[in-house]
Amino acid sequence: MQSFKKYAAEFIGTFVLVLFGCGSAATAGGELGYLGIAMAFGLSIVALAYVIGPISGCHVNPAVSLVMLVSRKLSAKDFYGYVVAQVAGAVAGSALLYAIIDSTGKAVTSLGQNGFGEGYGIGITTLMAFVVEVVLTFVFVYAILGVTSEASNGRVAGLVIGLTLAFVHILGIGLTGTSVNPARSFGPAILLGGEAWSQLWVFVTAPFIGALLALAAYRLLNVRKA
Amino acid sequence: MQSFKKYAAEFIGTFVLVLFGCGSAATAGGELGYLGIAMAFGLSIVALAYVIGPISGCHVNPAVSLVMLVSRKLSAKDFYGYVVAQVAGAVAGSALLYAIIDSTGKAVTSLGQNGFGEGYGIGITTLMAFVVEVVLTFVFVYAILGVTSEASNGRVAGLVIGLTLAFVHILGIGLTGTSVNPARSFGPAILLGGEAWSQLWVFVTAPFIGALLALAAYRLLNVRKA
Amino acid sequence: MQSFKKYAAEFIGTFVLVLFGCGSAATAGGELGYLGIAMAFGLSIVALAYVIGPISGCHVNPAVSLVMLVSRKLSAKDFYGYVVAQVAGAVAGSALLYAIIDSTGKAVTSLGQNGFGEGYGIGITTLMAFVVEVVLTFVFVYAILGVTSEASNGRVAGLVIGLTLAFVHILGIGLTGTSVNPARSFGPAILLGGEAWSQLWVFVTAPFIGALLALAAYRLLNVRKA
Amino acid sequence: MQSFKKYAAEFIGTFVLVLFGCGSAATAGGELGYLGIAMAFGLSIVALAYVIGPISGCHVNPAVSLVMLVSRKLSAKDFYGYVVAQVAGAVAGSALLYAIIDSTGKAVTSLGQNGFGEGYGIGITTLMAFVVEVVLTFVFVYAILGVTSEASNGRVAGLVIGLTLAFVHILGIGLTGTSVNPARSFGPAILLGGEAWSQLWVFVTAPFIGALLALAAYRLLNVRKA
Repeated sequence: MQSFKKYAAEFIGTFVLVLFGCGSAATAGGELGYLGIAMAFGLSIVALAYVIGPISGCHVNPAVSLVMLVSRKLSAKDFYGYVVAQVAGAVAGSALLYAIIDSTGKAVTSLGQNGFGEGYGIGITTLMAFVVEVVLTFVFVYAILGVTSEASNGRVAGLVIGLTLAFVHILGIGLTGTSVNPARSFGPAILLGGEAWSQLWVFVTAPFIGALLALAAYRLLNVRKA
Repeated sequence: MQSFKKYAAEFIGTFVLVLFGCGSAATAGGELGYLGIAMAFGLSIVALAYVIGPISGCHVNPAVSLVMLVSRKLSAKDFYGYVVAQVAGAVAGSALLYAIIDSTGKAVTSLGQNGFGEGYGIGITTLMAFVVEVVLTFVFVYAILGVTSEASNGRVAGLVIGLTLAFVHILGIGLTGTSVNPARSFGPAILLGGEAWSQLWVFVTAPFIGALLALAAYRLLNVRKA
Repeated sequence: MQSFKKYAAEFIGTFVLVLFGCGSAATAGGELGYLGIAMAFGLSIVALAYVIGPISGCHVNPAVSLVMLVSRKLSAKDFYGYVVAQVAGAVAGSALLYAIIDSTGKAVTSLGQNGFGEGYGIGITTLMAFVVEVVLTFVFVYAILGVTSEASNGRVAGLVIGLTLAFVHILGIGLTGTSVNPARSFGPAILLGGEAWSQLWVFVTAPFIGALLALAAYRLLNVRKA
Repeated sequence: MQSFKKYAAEFIGTFVLVLFGCGSAATAGGELGYLGIAMAFGLSIVALAYVIGPISGCHVNPAVSLVMLVSRKLSAKDFYGYVVAQVAGAVAGSALLYAIIDSTGKAVTSLGQNGFGEGYGIGITTLMAFVVEVVLTFVFVYAILGVTSEASNGRVAGLVIGLTLAFVHILGIGLTGTSVNPARSFGPAILLGGEAWSQLWVFVTAPFIGALLALAAYRLLNVRKA
């Protein structure tokens, strides 16, 4: 029952992240500007951290769950449960977003998918997109590890993590759309296919690598030897 | 006397929410963009929570008061008093906004009313507008229930709830204008009539349903069995 | 010596508020939008509250000082000292802003002055400008009284007050430019003359009235009888 | 080993500050607007303060390190180590930014460099640029000294310092691009040469002077005599 609650929380959380974050980009990107889209993603964590955090830790991101698995703060069984719930939540969020846009009678061409190359953002190369996602995820996960390591930060941790997610979007939207989260990229890609699908491997692998590098940096620099 | 203070606080709070939130959309929507309008609504809670919160809880929203009634944190008598005060505050805020715009000599065509269908935002259907308002209110009220459940969050709760209200506006402005609050929709609708009035039922019923679903999720997922 | 420190702190604070707030509006209003200008004013309080607050209380506003005088938290002698320092700081901030713009070789037509009527914002009437400033100041000062009344809010008070000042700017910029602070209006007006000067009386009297109404509401609604 | 950790932290921190802050301006300045760019710089501190702060204090700025040296909170040896790490981080961040933009096939004309005079911002003079940088750095460092002087501010200090850095960018972007940090200016200038390099002296000397003036004001106004 406790497992169900945790997986349900991760489902709801990733559903909200994708519906609101990707939905803001897809339905109102021009009116919001990059800062508005960045705040949609970032504030999803602020909204969720204080209600889902106590249940599941509010990962809503397989890359974050992987770091918790490697840190032995999440069991292997729960890791799989979390990832399934996160991916399901992301797909559900993308599907509702699809239905909302589709109800206007216009063709659905954007679900806030990530991308790179000609025609996406400033048009960076595959290699650079990979590097960018590694760096963005490194910064995001390193900040999470830092702010959650001291219990006394508890009350501001949700604000700090949310603002950090907004931060990595401010730079990343024009480059890759900012994934830092394989589930967030999978949702739009499975529904849209095309380039979003063929480029998905970058947004699955690079965030995992960036997250593990953040954990390595955290262990090297932040953890005091006994 | 304590009841009067609480109702007066709810009147002032809803007056400010509607005057500033709807007023920003109606008088400066283009200069502010969606993010600016979202922050107007969200920061109204930040401004009010620390001064009205200690008096009445700073609901400023009948859907929030309904959840408190069902949770037995608000008496039936106070529920009616709160809702009357909130609706009166919203109408007063809309009326002052009307007078401000009217004083410029231009016709008053917008008071920041909610809506949907052709000519409003991206033009979603009635069904989708209903679904959107249920989801927006679910997220908003679920966050409120989470952050207020631990006394240790007290000092940041106003910031978190305000930022969450901004969050649900970022996505919702282009879809329904974001109600999540029957009183906030009633104020402009009663003064403008027309579509704002004929569509009002969505913005009264959907927020109540979303709020009750949030309470159900909170009880199912967050409350530990004794 | 302690008086000198307090007056110097109020001078520096009002100097920064006017230079950065009014300066953002005058030199980069288009690039910032109303939300950016609002954040310039609001974040001046965040920047100053934690460093000037412990010295002088960080009023940087004669209307706030008046409320503290009436509340017997500020002596009559210090009230005059504070107001002189605030006005001097505002004039100095406006003067530096004048020199900065003047150094570009273009004519100085804006120092971020307040105003109303045809050609300013949406063009509201004198009466409405007066009402708007009373309401804006009421909300700002009422929030200050609330958040500073509980010592446990200490660490977030600067954030809350700053965000509230941003909040009243979001609505007010397009109406009156948002004064809520006689010193902030005096600085640009004394240097620019013209309408900024002839309309100054509104921005001196209305904030004082709004602040006193906030104190009255606070005493009526928030203060518990012994 | 502890020294290595501190220098590595300062390297990472300044790398992130320059890559994200300058990168946002260079790759997406139009989409972000001045407020978005300001938030990129400001939120870099929010992201870093809670993870790098416990290691090195999260100076990521030679002007801040100088103040800590003069305050005897940093040894002379560590001061040199910090500055070398900060400058190296800034150059590395600028180099990655160069590679990202270069990968699009377009010429790299902007790395978010600081500047003044005709063709930069509103075109202020050298003298005014110097004065502006002194004032911006004074405000930034004075706020840092204030908020870090009381241990009880610990949990909000990162938020306050980050928002203050955003604050000084809101006004400064259109004037000098806002340096307040010699390392941040050095990175783009060494890679771009031209005016960014010939004007660099302003952005090295003025921040040091502004920071020392902030320390002087702090000692004069804030420190109580024993």
